[in-house]
Amino acid sequence: MSEPSKTVGVLGGMGPAATLDFFQRVLAASNASRDSEHVRLIIDCNPFVPDRNAAVAGAGPSSGPALADMARGLERAGAELLVMPCNTAHAFLDDIRAATRLPVISIIDVTVSALVANIKQPRRAGVLATTGCVDAGLYQNALDRVGVTPVAPTGAARELFMAVLKRIKAGEVGDATKSDMLRVARALLDAGAEAIIAGCTEVPLVLDQADLEEPLLNSTDCLVEATITAARAS
Amino acid sequence: MSEPSKTVGVLGGMGPAATLDFFQRVLAASNASRDSEHVRLIIDCNPFVPDRNAAVAGAGPSSGPALADMARGLERAGAELLVMPCNTAHAFLDDIRAATRLPVISIIDVTVSALVANIKQPRRAGVLATTGCVDAGLYQNALDRVGVTPVAPTGAARELFMAVLKRIKAGEVGDATKSDMLRVARALLDAGAEAIIAGCTEVPLVLDQADLEEPLLNSTDCLVEATITAARAS
Repeated sequence: MSEPSKTVGVLGGMGPAATLDFFQRVLAASNASRDSEHVRLIIDCNPFVPDRNAAVAGAGPSSGPALADMARGLERAGAELLVMPCNTAHAFLDDIRAATRLPVISIIDVTVSALVANIKQPRRAGVLATTGCVDAGLYQNALDRVGVTPVAPTGAARELFMAVLKRIKAGEVGDATKSDMLRVARALLDAGAEAIIAGCTEVPLVLDQADLEEPLLNSTDCLVEATITAARAS
Repeated sequence: MSEPSKTVGVLGGMGPAATLDFFQRVLAASNASRDSEHVRLIIDCNPFVPDRNAAVAGAGPSSGPALADMARGLERAGAELLVMPCNTAHAFLDDIRAATRLPVISIIDVTVSALVANIKQPRRAGVLATTGCVDAGLYQNALDRVGVTPVAPTGAARELFMAVLKRIKAGEVGDATKSDMLRVARALLDAGAEAIIAGCTEVPLVLDQADLEEPLLNSTDCLVEATITAARAS
């Protein structure tokens, strides 16, 4: 069967609601007027990948082997390129790349590229990212390469951020959660950030540009756009 | 990695929005308070399966080979049971069952079981189903076995129903579409139906029980419940 776009394998389930959000945004951004104008996605929504934050901290088993298994499974199911709508899991990108010959689009790279391309380049960018994502240096390294200084949550703001993520994963996505997420974003702005990167795919479940005057760059949307472009490239 | 529930393979993309709706309902119905309380889903959202209605009518290629390929791919990716949130595609269930050793839960069977179990058994049940679903006798045969007479859209109501599905697939899910879907449902009630089966996974994208006084049984929800129960069975 000859198909008009490449099949995208999605390493998902981290968490499931963030994967659903990614799926929904891909469908919306595809501007399809009939089924066959969509891209084909094979989504492994695996909620049993060992905790990424614990793994980065050395306090739990590595997430790498499970992610490598998922990548191999998606390749066997027919995927031609891979994406992963979870920023922290990119600490294990080397394990995934070692397990498959398929190209893997990095959510970190496409988000930092979009920051440079679409927003008046800030000197300091606030990064709403998990402890594991920060400790693995994912945004730090990518922003360093383009001369932007990252500002990540520290102290009480970091603790609040991790607690808010847990509430989102439990389905609490109402105004109280949004308000706490905004407090974390404001802490980054108070520390000198000129723009905010939603560098965790749970963030857009409660926060969007309408909630902030400063530029907010959503890593999920950056990955959605890169995914559709790559799938439709000949 | 030992997982607390079976991995569910989903033959999807017929259409993509109906697959997204199924995914969303599985997450909501899982009542999970953390990632690992969800079930693992591997969703092949394939918008390129040959048109099911044209295939049943003999006016296009069979959908069977593409569905069989998807079933094999999902098995290779680790699925332990299969579901398909598209009623009409069940006309090709034999092709799927011939391609894999995995159990396949039929949306038709679980919906008719739920009708008998949950609703004061009607003598006549209206079935909001596509031309292909009706012509393949899917609900006709299953309802016959439990002594219920199906009432399907005919004539202008059938044409309106097929036109409404096309609008839903193009993303038109507002009040005008809901109103036309309700007109089709009312035509079935006027023809003697005592309950309505939403026997097409596009229907719940615009219509739910709040829109009708008569009982409305949603095939997507029936499949969601059967999927979670089967995944969690030891």
